[in-house]
Amino acid sequence: MYQCSETNKTRETFCDIYFEMSLKKILLGTVFLRNRYIGLSSVSTITDKKYRFDESEGFLFRTKGKILTAAVFSSVLIGAAVNEQIKDKNVKSQSNDVVIEAGEKLPDLPTYTAEEVSKHGDKNSFWVTYKHGVYDVTKFLPSHPGGEQIMNAGGLSIEPFWNVYGMHKTPEIYKLLESYRIGNLHDDDVIDHSDDELWVKEPVRDNRLIVKTAKPFNAEIPAKYQIEFFDTPNELFYVRQHMPVPELDADDHRLKVTVKGSKIRTEEFSLRDLDKFRRVTTRAALMCAGNRRSEMNEVKPVKGIGWMGGAISNAVWGGVYLRDVLLYSGVDPEDTKGKHVIFTGADIDATGVNFSTSIPLDMAMNPSSGILLATTMNGHPLPPDHGRPLRAVVPGAPAVRSVKWLQSITVSEDESPSHWHQKDYRAFNPSKTWETADFATAPPVYSLPVTSAICDPADGDVVSVKNGAVQVRGYAYSGGGAKIVRVDVSADGGRSWWEARELQADAAPPQQHYGWTLWTASVPVATQQKEVELWAKATDSNFNTQPERFNDIWNIRGILSNAYHRIKIKLVH
Amino acid sequence: MYQCSETNKTRETFCDIYFEMSLKKILLGTVFLRNRYIGLSSVSTITDKKYRFDESEGFLFRTKGKILTAAVFSSVLIGAAVNEQIKDKNVKSQSNDVVIEAGEKLPDLPTYTAEEVSKHGDKNSFWVTYKHGVYDVTKFLPSHPGGEQIMNAGGLSIEPFWNVYGMHKTPEIYKLLESYRIGNLHDDDVIDHSDDELWVKEPVRDNRLIVKTAKPFNAEIPAKYQIEFFDTPNELFYVRQHMPVPELDADDHRLKVTVKGSKIRTEEFSLRDLDKFRRVTTRAALMCAGNRRSEMNEVKPVKGIGWMGGAISNAVWGGVYLRDVLLYSGVDPEDTKGKHVIFTGADIDATGVNFSTSIPLDMAMNPSSGILLATTMNGHPLPPDHGRPLRAVVPGAPAVRSVKWLQSITVSEDESPSHWHQKDYRAFNPSKTWETADFATAPPVYSLPVTSAICDPADGDVVSVKNGAVQVRGYAYSGGGAKIVRVDVSADGGRSWWEARELQADAAPPQQHYGWTLWTASVPVATQQKEVELWAKATDSNFNTQPERFNDIWNIRGILSNAYHRIKIKLVH
Repeated sequence: MYQCSETNKTRETFCDIYFEMSLKKILLGTVFLRNRYIGLSSVSTITDKKYRFDESEGFLFRTKGKILTAAVFSSVLIGAAVNEQIKDKNVKSQSNDVVIEAGEKLPDLPTYTAEEVSKHGDKNSFWVTYKHGVYDVTKFLPSHPGGEQIMNAGGLSIEPFWNVYGMHKTPEIYKLLESYRIGNLHDDDVIDHSDDELWVKEPVRDNRLIVKTAKPFNAEIPAKYQIEFFDTPNELFYVRQHMPVPELDADDHRLKVTVKGSKIRTEEFSLRDLDKFRRVTTRAALMCAGNRRSEMNEVKPVKGIGWMGGAISNAVWGGVYLRDVLLYSGVDPEDTKGKHVIFTGADIDATGVNFSTSIPLDMAMNPSSGILLATTMNGHPLPPDHGRPLRAVVPGAPAVRSVKWLQSITVSEDESPSHWHQKDYRAFNPSKTWETADFATAPPVYSLPVTSAICDPADGDVVSVKNGAVQVRGYAYSGGGAKIVRVDVSADGGRSWWEARELQADAAPPQQHYGWTLWTASVPVATQQKEVELWAKATDSNFNTQPERFNDIWNIRGILSNAYHRIKIKLVH
Repeated sequence: MYQCSETNKTRETFCDIYFEMSLKKILLGTVFLRNRYIGLSSVSTITDKKYRFDESEGFLFRTKGKILTAAVFSSVLIGAAVNEQIKDKNVKSQSNDVVIEAGEKLPDLPTYTAEEVSKHGDKNSFWVTYKHGVYDVTKFLPSHPGGEQIMNAGGLSIEPFWNVYGMHKTPEIYKLLESYRIGNLHDDDVIDHSDDELWVKEPVRDNRLIVKTAKPFNAEIPAKYQIEFFDTPNELFYVRQHMPVPELDADDHRLKVTVKGSKIRTEEFSLRDLDKFRRVTTRAALMCAGNRRSEMNEVKPVKGIGWMGGAISNAVWGGVYLRDVLLYSGVDPEDTKGKHVIFTGADIDATGVNFSTSIPLDMAMNPSSGILLATTMNGHPLPPDHGRPLRAVVPGAPAVRSVKWLQSITVSEDESPSHWHQKDYRAFNPSKTWETADFATAPPVYSLPVTSAICDPADGDVVSVKNGAVQVRGYAYSGGGAKIVRVDVSADGGRSWWEARELQADAAPPQQHYGWTLWTASVPVATQQKEVELWAKATDSNFNTQPERFNDIWNIRGILSNAYHRIKIKLVH
C-alpha cells in the first residue's frame, strides 16, 4: 500500500511505480523485450461533477529505443468491464485521496511461485499476480469486454498490463481484484514495476483545459470558452490523445504515400515538397465521436472518456488537399470504389503499432469533402498536441479520422487493420452488449450526427431573468457537411420551442458546411418559475434532428451521444 | 343542393358543375378572361382508414387556349384553415355519401345584388357569394392561412376559386360557410360555375394505387408493393401532381437553358440534342417531403395531402448529368456561390404560372450530387405521370425539386420566385403557427432526413408467430446521399431492439447513396403476447436517427414527418 497525491480538480496526478523487469520473468508470458522494460505510470483521473471513472483510452509501453511486442488491450474495455463488476458487487468507492492498492502480502494464505502461477493461464483456470497477491480470476473472464485479449495475461503479473492501461489503478478495481485473492506470490518472484519516462516530453498545456486523463492527455475545453471564440484559440482546442505526443522535427519530417494498385507506387514528401500543391484553408470543427458521452452514461454506464460537451472545437486549418496529393501520387480517380486511404501517425502503442485509421477513397477523392493535409491551425503551425508538423483534417468525420503526426498514407483495398479502426468508433443498437456486438459487420463511423449543447448558462447556474426571458447560448454541429439550419430551445418540457435568433456560422456551399454554429436564444420564462429545465435541439440542412432521449441511441461505446441537451437552472426574477 | 356519387375506395369521384361566367362578372374581381372561363371541377377525396380531408394541393383554371390571370391561392392552406375552424366549432362531418352544398336560396333573408356585394371587398367588410348565398366572412379572414390571398375573392363569388381549390367542397366547409350567411344573392346575379375539360387528357392510372386526390392526381403506392420490388414498377410509382398532366410531344419538346451572368446566354436543346452528353443512370428513390404526414397529423392537424407511407418509390433514372449540360451552357464552375438553378415545368397553375422551383447551383455543379435530366425510368421512356418526356431528378432532395415536364432551366442569382418554392417545402418548429411562421427566413428543404416504415405487417394485421418471432419488412431512406446503415425494430416499447439482418440496398460511394433500402427483421415476441406495438427506426451513415415522437418535429405544413413508425398488430401463436 502506498499513498498517491490525488487532488480534486488538479490536472496531473500520478502514482508512479518504477520497476525493472528481468528478461526471464517477461518470457513467462507473451511480453518479450530485449533490453529494459519501462511501464506506463498510472493514468490519473480527475474527479469533477460529471466525471466518471472509465476513462483513459490510451495505452502503450516501450523500451528505451526498442519496441515491445505485447497484447493489444483496449484499456477502456477493461476498465469499463471492471466497473460493471463493481456495480454488480455493490462495491463502494473509497476516498479519492488515499489509494489503497491491491497486492499486499497477507497472512494465512498459501504461497505460490511464479512458475506455479504460470500453469494457470487458460480459461479453465486463469490466475494472475499483482505485487504479492495471487488471484484466480477465472470467473471474471466472461465479463472482460476485451474478450480474448485478457488471455495474454494468463499465469502472469498483470502489473505490466496495468501500467499500460493505467485506469485500472483505482481503489474500486483494487478491491475487486482482492475479491479474487487466493494466495501470496513467493517473495523471490515479486518484481517492482513502473515507468514515467514516456511522458517527460509532453507539451505544456493551458491550465484552463478540463483534464479528463493526464496520461495520455485528454482534456476538454470549458463551455464558456467554446462560445467566446468562433474559431477556438489553439491553446483552448480540446485535446484527444491515444498515446504520448511524438516529438517530430518539421524539417526532417517525411510523408510517405503508397498507392497499391496493379503495381505499388510510393512517393515521399517533405513539408516543403507539399508546397507544390495549391495551399488552401478549410474551417472545420473537430469533434470526438464520444463528445457528450457523460450524458449517455447517465442512462446506463458506457465505456470511454467521460466527455461532457467540451470535446469539440472549431478552427481554420491550412494545408493542401489530400485529393491533390493522391492524384499526384498515382490514384486513378475512376478507380476508387471500395478502396480505402489509411492514415498512419507517428504515435506508437504498447505493441509497437503506430496509430492508424482509414477513410474510404471515394470520400478522399470527392472534391467537396475538403479533406486536408494540414500544417497550420488558425494561421499558426500546428501545436504538438494537434499533430505538429502534419495532420489529416477530415471535415465532418469523427476527429479520430483526422490523424495527427501524419507519417504515411496508404491507398489500399482494405480498411486500416488497426485496433482503433476495427474495434472502436463503430456503433450498435442499445440491446447489443460487449458479448453480442459484432465489430466486423458494424460500419465505421465516417460522419457525425447533428448535435448541440447549451454552453451558457451551465447546469445548476442561478440566472437572472431579464425582460421575462433568459439568454441561452451554445454550439451546434452536424457532420458530413450538413449545415445547422435551426436551433430550438424549450423551457417547458417541449410544450413550446423558441428558435435561436442568432446563428453564427461560416458561409459554405450546401453539404460542405464543416464549421460549427454558435447560437443565442432568448427563452421566455414565467415569473412564478424558480427553476427551469432547458432543452436544446438542433436541426441540420438534411432536416435531421437530435433524438429526444439517450435511451434508444445508447451504445456500449457511448459514442454519437447527441440527444437533446438538458440542463436545470435556477431563476432570479 | 345536389347529390354526388362518392364511393369509398373508388378512385375517381367528381362533383362537377359546369358554368359559363360572363366577362362582366369576372371583371368585378381580379379574375380576367378574354374568352370563356372553365373552372376546375371539384377535387374528389377518397376516404380510407388513415385519410383525412385536407388534401389536394393542386389548383388551376384556364380558358380554352388562353390563360387566366388570377390570384394564386394555396389550396392546402385554405382547406386546412377551414378544417381548423370546423374543429373549433365542433361541426361534425356528415355522411360522405350525400354532399349538402351551401348556397341554397333561403327565406327570410335580405337580398343583395352582385354590385352591392362587390362593395364589401376589404378587411373591414369582406363579403363573398356562393350560388344563392351571401356571406360576411370578415371575421374569418384572420384564420385564413393563405393570408392576403383570400382578399382576391372580396366582394365576389367564391365559386371560381373553389372550383380551382376543389377541396373546399365538403359538407364541413359548406356548413362553415353557411355559419357566415347574411343573405341571398339576387337571382339575376346567380351564375352557374363548373369545369371538367382540364382533366380529360389525364393518363390512365394503375388501379392498385391509393388515390389521395383525383384532381390533381395524387396517389400513393400500397405498402405491400413497396417491398415487393426493389425498383418500383413505373405504374406503381407514387404520383404527386400539382396540376393536370401536360401532354408533351417528345419530338417537339425543347429545353431552354438560360445562364444569367455578366451577359445572358441561352441554349435550346431538343431531346436528341441532349444525346451529345454522356448518358448515365442513377438509382434514386423519390420521396415527397410530406410522406408519412398522416402520422404527424395525429398529433395535431397539419396541412397537406394525408400521405401514409406510400409517397416514396425507387427507380433507376436514365439521362444526362445536369452538370454537363450547365457546363456546356456556359456555367462557370468557379462562380457558383449563392446562385440557383431554377427548373420550370410545363404544368400551369390557375394564374398562368408554370410550376417552378430551384436548387442551389453549388448542389447542381457538385459532381457527386448525381442530378439528372432524365428521359427514362427503369429503362422505359418516362410515363406521362412522371414527366414525359423530360424531368429533373435531384437525388436525395424532396421530390418537388425533381421538376417534371421540364421545359426550362435558368441559372440565376435568385431562387425561384414561385409560390411552391417560396411558400411551401420549408419547415418550422412546433410552436410556429401560420401567423408566426416566416417563410422568407426559413431555408428551403433541399435534402430529406432519415426515415423508415414498416410495410408488412400492416397496422391492425393479425400475424402468425413463427419460431417465437414475427417477420417485419419495410423500407428505409435518407436524403443527401446518406446510406442506411441500420434498421432496428422494437416490440416492447424500446426496451429491446432487434437489428434488421437483411438490408437490400444499392452499392454506392459514401454520401452518394440515393436509392432506398428494403429491410427484413425477425422480432421475437413472448408467447403470452396477444398484441404488440412494433416500432421501427433507421440510422443513416451520418448516424442520424429518427426522432422518437412527432411532437417535437411537428410543423404546420406536416413535412419531414420522420419519427419512429409504430404499428399495432395482433399475434396468433
